[in-house]
Amino acid sequence: MSTVIALETSDVRFPTSRSLDGSDAMNLDPDYSAAYVRVVTDADDHANAGLEGHGFVFTIGRGNDVQVAAIQALEHHLVGRNTEELLANMGATWREFVWDSQLRWLGPEKGVMHMAIGAVVNALWDLKAKRAGLPLWQLLSRMSPEEIVELVDFRYLTDALTPDDALQILRAAVPGRAQREAALLASGYPAYTTTPGWLGYTDEKLVRLAREAVDDGFRMIKLKVGGDVDDDIRRLRLAREAVGPDIAIGTDANQRWGVDEAIQWMSRLAEFDIAWIEEPTSPDDILAHAAIARGVAPIPVATGEHVANRIMFKQFLQADALQILQIDATRVGGVNENIAILLLAAKFDVPVCPHAGGVGLCEAVQHLSMFDFIAVSGSTEGRMIEYVDHLHEHFVTPVDVRGGAYRAPTAPGAGAQMHETSRAEYAFQ
Amino acid sequence: MSTVIALETSDVRFPTSRSLDGSDAMNLDPDYSAAYVRVVTDADDHANAGLEGHGFVFTIGRGNDVQVAAIQALEHHLVGRNTEELLANMGATWREFVWDSQLRWLGPEKGVMHMAIGAVVNALWDLKAKRAGLPLWQLLSRMSPEEIVELVDFRYLTDALTPDDALQILRAAVPGRAQREAALLASGYPAYTTTPGWLGYTDEKLVRLAREAVDDGFRMIKLKVGGDVDDDIRRLRLAREAVGPDIAIGTDANQRWGVDEAIQWMSRLAEFDIAWIEEPTSPDDILAHAAIARGVAPIPVATGEHVANRIMFKQFLQADALQILQIDATRVGGVNENIAILLLAAKFDVPVCPHAGGVGLCEAVQHLSMFDFIAVSGSTEGRMIEYVDHLHEHFVTPVDVRGGAYRAPTAPGAGAQMHETSRAEYAFQ
Repeated sequence: MSTVIALETSDVRFPTSRSLDGSDAMNLDPDYSAAYVRVVTDADDHANAGLEGHGFVFTIGRGNDVQVAAIQALEHHLVGRNTEELLANMGATWREFVWDSQLRWLGPEKGVMHMAIGAVVNALWDLKAKRAGLPLWQLLSRMSPEEIVELVDFRYLTDALTPDDALQILRAAVPGRAQREAALLASGYPAYTTTPGWLGYTDEKLVRLAREAVDDGFRMIKLKVGGDVDDDIRRLRLAREAVGPDIAIGTDANQRWGVDEAIQWMSRLAEFDIAWIEEPTSPDDILAHAAIARGVAPIPVATGEHVANRIMFKQFLQADALQILQIDATRVGGVNENIAILLLAAKFDVPVCPHAGGVGLCEAVQHLSMFDFIAVSGSTEGRMIEYVDHLHEHFVTPVDVRGGAYRAPTAPGAGAQMHETSRAEYAFQ
Repeated sequence: MSTVIALETSDVRFPTSRSLDGSDAMNLDPDYSAAYVRVVTDADDHANAGLEGHGFVFTIGRGNDVQVAAIQALEHHLVGRNTEELLANMGATWREFVWDSQLRWLGPEKGVMHMAIGAVVNALWDLKAKRAGLPLWQLLSRMSPEEIVELVDFRYLTDALTPDDALQILRAAVPGRAQREAALLASGYPAYTTTPGWLGYTDEKLVRLAREAVDDGFRMIKLKVGGDVDDDIRRLRLAREAVGPDIAIGTDANQRWGVDEAIQWMSRLAEFDIAWIEEPTSPDDILAHAAIARGVAPIPVATGEHVANRIMFKQFLQADALQILQIDATRVGGVNENIAILLLAAKFDVPVCPHAGGVGLCEAVQHLSMFDFIAVSGSTEGRMIEYVDHLHEHFVTPVDVRGGAYRAPTAPGAGAQMHETSRAEYAFQ
């Protein structure tokens, strides 16, 4: 038996704006940051002593302190609590955070307060996985369908997905779990890369990085668009020449457009055989996404990194407003809510291609896709995890991406743990 | 010429949970609170010296400190800036806050960070109105259609409302502005009261307060529902007996239900001649509201106090998911965004009945309805402002509600200024 004795936060910021890594049509000068949380217990038994749960919210600079303050506001839910009880009932633990009626007013279930809950939930999952001696993807993949359903809050979902629907999806994937786990351990999970495509890069750098991506085994690259249509055409032409006809090229407008503008702009880019258009407009605008999807077809619409919660994702699916669903590890209420979203995607038969990059998003989100492959959708077809090759060195168990695939991590935990030295060196004053 | 020299915040909390004022099916024990902001300048000319802009975000207790931190994160946008420039271009000022690309990541345009922007925007409007020597409603109502359109950010709106649409609506309301202003000053703006209807009140208190409401001239009362259907039936029967057949009774479920539950529950309450069902489900769930609206017709669906921004309101209107639109003074990005929402409502010909109560929401939101009457919709038909009779004594210019109507305030400003003594006495430690 042990007790949670501390929830420690830190404000970590990397000065990425200096090199324009991460620059796009909406985010001109991001300083990739993490509102970081560490859950500490007084466990003194051999197996659990010293194990900590780590989690974070990814932000792009200013306001990271507000995000840290929101995580601290959850302290009373954790400190002094029985660790084993919290970890044994992660569904109930999630509900307790999300249904705190006073905190809920600050969202509800969106923005700073909801992301703070996500960070703490993810830190608890990290601790739970470490205690089990398993990487998170494996811990989740070995739970029974009934246990998984128990993690999900179905309030506001049942018009699209009932607990029975979820059970059916999960039970259908039980046969083959072992084979898929073996395949995953052997071959990894497909990745695509955004590294060549930032708006702030020169043409020369774009071409060089695009070629390198192909040489590294990636089957898809992604380019930021939406700043200037003639620039986009030039950059897409260069990229297409660099990678050849067989490599997919996705585009990402980072919420830049309204409905008409999106449709017109994409009609000019269509000749380059576009794999998807990502975030064409506001992440809140389900109906606009649906109109754009109709207008740019057959180019699929991808979105999700800024979609606030499972209720919004549900509607995107109901309205056929996205054809590729992009979960994010730190935007919604953590692992539990992302499981709900994976189940919704499976119900609607829409592939999930997670958003990653930033700080630690690759490390965190890979576990969810691998769990999806083994225990939910049972497929990697049309599915890839985004990859960007910076800031991984700050993590204790950095991703291992080779031959265009994420290699399945084997270290216990959820992947979010940052080196103490990095947290100290980049602590924001 | 003057400069903004300070943005001062305070964490003010009233222990309302002790008396169960404000209790409903989702919010069992709210402590009505304000994340309060004061904008101070160094103006030393006779007209403007000592004038301050006051604003706040209403919360219900825990997390008010997070909201205060978010307001503080906007300090760099204000302190050291030229006051006259900020106030002369309130459209540009709004865009500067909302389009801060790093802060935007924390929403975007929703939750804690967006409400913080709303508080600061409202404080600037308060200062602008005080400098003009006018109550906010009058300041806004005297602006030209072109000036009003300039305040609105049409990004993500033009598939439903273009600047030209807005101009047309505003120009159509120019004739008659003076007559409507005179009528407003003579008779006030219609109000309804939620005072009798909190879930935590006894039947005896409900009946007594319902009778008092009618005696006080209100033509509508509202009851919280959604805790227990048999309780709701008993309370509605008592209320209907107390007020007679001619007084409207609205109901408010505070997001308690899913689609099917909402429709079934309301079918049991329909016999009491329900004026509207408010917040039947999640404020993010446009499609569920639309399904509920179809299922409970002819009872109209009302919602809005938790709707995060103009983009969500646009879709509620596009999907016919609400028949009564409830703006809130401190949920969205302040006066500018509420003007966008009033214009959307006018375009779709949907009446606006603001949410109020809480701390200072009545004082703040009345200005928007009065502006709507004079310069946007030109009508009070089917429109009422919510009224709850507590905590007004803490405000410098408390609302004056008599004979079931809000009397038009004449004091300069936006109404949000709390007594310094109240802020000090209820400062949260």
